[in-house]
Amino acid sequence: MKVIVIGGDGYCGWATALHLSNQGYDVGILDNLSRRYWDSKLGVDTLTPIAPIQKRIKRWQELTGKTIDLFVGDITDYSFLSQTLRQFEPEAIVHFGEQRSAPYSMIDREHAVFTQVNNVVGTLNILYAMKEDFPEAHLVKLGTMGEYGTPNIDIEEGYITIEHNGRKDTLPYPKQPGSFYHLSKVHDSHNIHFACKIWGLRATDLNQGVVYGVLTEETGMDEMLINRLDYDGVFGTALNRFCIQAAIGHPLTVYGKGGQTRGFLDIRDTVRCIDIAIKNPAEEGKFRVFNQFTELFSIKDLAEMVQKAGQAIGLKVEIDNLDNPRVELDEHYFNAKNTKLLDLGLQPHYLSDSLLDSLLNFAEKYKGRVDKEQILPTVSWHRK
Amino acid sequence: MKVIVIGGDGYCGWATALHLSNQGYDVGILDNLSRRYWDSKLGVDTLTPIAPIQKRIKRWQELTGKTIDLFVGDITDYSFLSQTLRQFEPEAIVHFGEQRSAPYSMIDREHAVFTQVNNVVGTLNILYAMKEDFPEAHLVKLGTMGEYGTPNIDIEEGYITIEHNGRKDTLPYPKQPGSFYHLSKVHDSHNIHFACKIWGLRATDLNQGVVYGVLTEETGMDEMLINRLDYDGVFGTALNRFCIQAAIGHPLTVYGKGGQTRGFLDIRDTVRCIDIAIKNPAEEGKFRVFNQFTELFSIKDLAEMVQKAGQAIGLKVEIDNLDNPRVELDEHYFNAKNTKLLDLGLQPHYLSDSLLDSLLNFAEKYKGRVDKEQILPTVSWHRK
Repeated sequence: MKVIVIGGDGYCGWATALHLSNQGYDVGILDNLSRRYWDSKLGVDTLTPIAPIQKRIKRWQELTGKTIDLFVGDITDYSFLSQTLRQFEPEAIVHFGEQRSAPYSMIDREHAVFTQVNNVVGTLNILYAMKEDFPEAHLVKLGTMGEYGTPNIDIEEGYITIEHNGRKDTLPYPKQPGSFYHLSKVHDSHNIHFACKIWGLRATDLNQGVVYGVLTEETGMDEMLINRLDYDGVFGTALNRFCIQAAIGHPLTVYGKGGQTRGFLDIRDTVRCIDIAIKNPAEEGKFRVFNQFTELFSIKDLAEMVQKAGQAIGLKVEIDNLDNPRVELDEHYFNAKNTKLLDLGLQPHYLSDSLLDSLLNFAEKYKGRVDKEQILPTVSWHRK
Repeated sequence: MKVIVIGGDGYCGWATALHLSNQGYDVGILDNLSRRYWDSKLGVDTLTPIAPIQKRIKRWQELTGKTIDLFVGDITDYSFLSQTLRQFEPEAIVHFGEQRSAPYSMIDREHAVFTQVNNVVGTLNILYAMKEDFPEAHLVKLGTMGEYGTPNIDIEEGYITIEHNGRKDTLPYPKQPGSFYHLSKVHDSHNIHFACKIWGLRATDLNQGVVYGVLTEETGMDEMLINRLDYDGVFGTALNRFCIQAAIGHPLTVYGKGGQTRGFLDIRDTVRCIDIAIKNPAEEGKFRVFNQFTELFSIKDLAEMVQKAGQAIGLKVEIDNLDNPRVELDEHYFNAKNTKLLDLGLQPHYLSDSLLDSLLNFAEKYKGRVDKEQILPTVSWHRK
């Protein structure tokens, strides 16, 4: 089965491309390499020394005999996208290819506009290319749990049945996203839902939680296959960032009280979730939504777990409660459902001491590459 | 009070700008005149011979002594927008300045992408300009009843209180828009809601129904002030289009069974609703939503009303049930609330025989300008 991974040079995309290749799919990577470029422009870098995509793919072939086709270009360029898909002829399209950082989208007006235009137009182009040439293909699209915000009721998977004034309907779950990036994912979800309805396309929106970890079975095979690991204030996410901070003796940066509760998952589960979604495609005309996380944690709890794990290997780990640069509740109800992927067979890697140990050791190994100037958050959600 | 009307050269915008000027507001019009340009490109034209915006404004001043400032430019050009607002210093910003046709957005990929980028970026730019320079100003933004789609439960005004698994919250009403244009309005609503929340801006989203009629107290003063009246398959909307079809002896074009029920309002109420919203601004940080329509009608009912009114003045009026070019239910539950504007004092002009008479006579007067080739819908929502 032919699967194209858009954004296959990124953190989730690279791990997924290799996993799918290892599982026997015929994999292509389409990527504009923009994450590497944005890193350069912001002066940040992954903790890990990632190889150029061409060398990564070559090494993968040397190690496994499996080839991955590479298409370097931008999906907001419709003629490039259309030609690439016609050449590759995908049966499933996995779409990670978006600007995925909330702080990046909040830097200023230009970054907000860029994020929304880039993400919305890229996804619209994919939908039109599917309509024209691949109406039977299955779109597996990365959404985010952040589309829901933090409502005071349970979060369902994409839809909610509402009884109101004696009548009942199942409607898209209300969205309260918390950044211009998260908003772009909400826009995408609405656009994809509509395209499925009018053109009979099939799509799965994976509302993913915060991903942690770095090694997968495949990326761990060889240092040339190593995945990126972001720790900076713009692209770094909670648990990964905390482990790197612990390794270099920097206080863990908790925003506000740390009562923000979110869904989390191990990157080894991300790659399995994509595989599960592909193996169980959405029906024709259906816009299906899975909540893709395995556990709920508060930021405070995670910081304390990293502190404890760090202390166990002799690190001195402090926790700093920074003024929250974001506008969000730091204490709230949060109960999100995640049974759909479990029902399809996902066997989660729950967060464990051994994972934290391994991540801390990994961070220790590369800590010489850390630029301490990049750790603190510099982007504010506030007007003044 | 200084009010800038973005899109003040359009159908609703022009009528509103004059009404606000007549009410004593200090009015500016910001418009890129793109509707006139799109008409040229599509080869369509308003039934009525509209004067250039500069002449319209000059005539208004001659008749009333009231001046309206004119700023010709595009709000997707941030430096133009920002400079214009700094020069005019608005206390309220009325935003009609978007691509507003569902069929236009469905012509092809380019028109879908254009509609979403144009509308979303324009609104984002307004939000950033307000954040930078006019955080106290009140944004009065035109949304659409089409954001809600046709759910099987009552439609509330922007928000719905949901009880779920023993808990309760009031959340944004779920959106099921039916075109890439309607989707752009949903994207706008989410973006504006977020900006109000994080920056403390104040905004009113007016989810307007289908507007009919052409004369207002102000635009009827002089032929040089005449408003546009669209009858073509791309920009023409249900009731106005039917009256023009009746006047020229063309069958009324009902899509499918005509059981589609929508909210409608007289353009004389549109201009009053804007005035009411401005006079009663949203609180700081609040994203307020009003459903702006006065009556619900099915398309079939409207066609029959026009048929009857036409026959009463001696016209022979047939009704044609065309294959529906859109993907939408043509029989469905529809019950939308509209009490918020009524509570603030709106006194509706309900659809009456005399309005239909006047609209039919108006259409008769200009029927020599009709291009019959432009009447039938040519844009399809369907894949094949």
